[in-house]
Amino acid sequence: MELLKEKILKEGSIVGNDILKVDSFLNHQIDVSFLNEVGKEFKKRFNDVKIDKILTIEASGIAIASIASQYFGNVPVVFAKKSESKNLDKDVYETNVYSFTKGKEYSVKVSKRYLNEGENILVLDDFLANGRAALGLKDIIDQAGANLMGIGIVIEKGFQEGRELLQKNNIRLESLAILESIGNNTVKFR
Amino acid sequence: MELLKEKILKEGSIVGNDILKVDSFLNHQIDVSFLNEVGKEFKKRFNDVKIDKILTIEASGIAIASIASQYFGNVPVVFAKKSESKNLDKDVYETNVYSFTKGKEYSVKVSKRYLNEGENILVLDDFLANGRAALGLKDIIDQAGANLMGIGIVIEKGFQEGRELLQKNNIRLESLAILESIGNNTVKFR
Repeated sequence: MELLKEKILKEGSIVGNDILKVDSFLNHQIDVSFLNEVGKEFKKRFNDVKIDKILTIEASGIAIASIASQYFGNVPVVFAKKSESKNLDKDVYETNVYSFTKGKEYSVKVSKRYLNEGENILVLDDFLANGRAALGLKDIIDQAGANLMGIGIVIEKGFQEGRELLQKNNIRLESLAILESIGNNTVKFR
Repeated sequence: MELLKEKILKEGSIVGNDILKVDSFLNHQIDVSFLNEVGKEFKKRFNDVKIDKILTIEASGIAIASIASQYFGNVPVVFAKKSESKNLDKDVYETNVYSFTKGKEYSVKVSKRYLNEGENILVLDDFLANGRAALGLKDIIDQAGANLMGIGIVIEKGFQEGRELLQKNNIRLESLAILESIGNNTVKFR
């Protein structure tokens, strides 16, 4: 997606050799016009499958999924919760995900009310790195007996193992931009 | 807002005497068509002021603010971050908010890059209860030298002190539904 690549080159900043910060339009401040273009692009990529619901994970995935839903007939969006929440249903699908950024495991939960057997689920998220969060969401979808139709990612870190891991698990992956490398303060796309 | 009241009566569930769960359309699953109506209503309520940016707080505020932005000319949305985050700028506005739900203080942060002096800010959030989170966001806006034009709330717990606290601080408040009480498994609106 050319517009995304331009945004990354213009507004992204690199920290070390593996962190790309896109706080100005995706992870802290949100560019809503731009997210509408992202939503259109996801619809184009997944236009061949019927989607009943979009699943994402708090917090950065929420804006992406909500805006994108408008291009999928306003299907419901469900966001998986990362932290212990007093108000969440006790009756949840749950999985553990290891975060390399935080150096620890966290629990991801979705209430059983909002994922149903046989539903066609599209997972959308901001980044794909090592693929652990994506696999966690697949685990939750499997527990519900729903169908994971594919995973749409805004920015894939092509130099990490996420794609390989998802392919091993026969998961369809559509990334709008794939980073080949982000070392030496230079972004290279695949 | 009649549609909201209908949704609350039809889909909301009451826990104890002070918690209204609206997980089916606002806090876990998101009804995107409905949020578009919420966005239109906020625009109607704040149509007399020029808004440069919408500020909200993760996680539930993000969908509300992102969809609403489309009715305010796609102004940027900034979501304040609640937890310590490795990738956040060191250069942040920060305030502490006491959460009665969680029984502890948490830190709320916004990068200095995304709130600027003189900007007109609209704060949007899902719930108003005791008003502490809203006041925290006002503190951050004050630190930035920006202007808080008003706070738009989807569901106000009218039986808690939020409104009084905001009025004392001369903050304009627009709530789309005000709960008079939610005791005895019955929702009463003001």
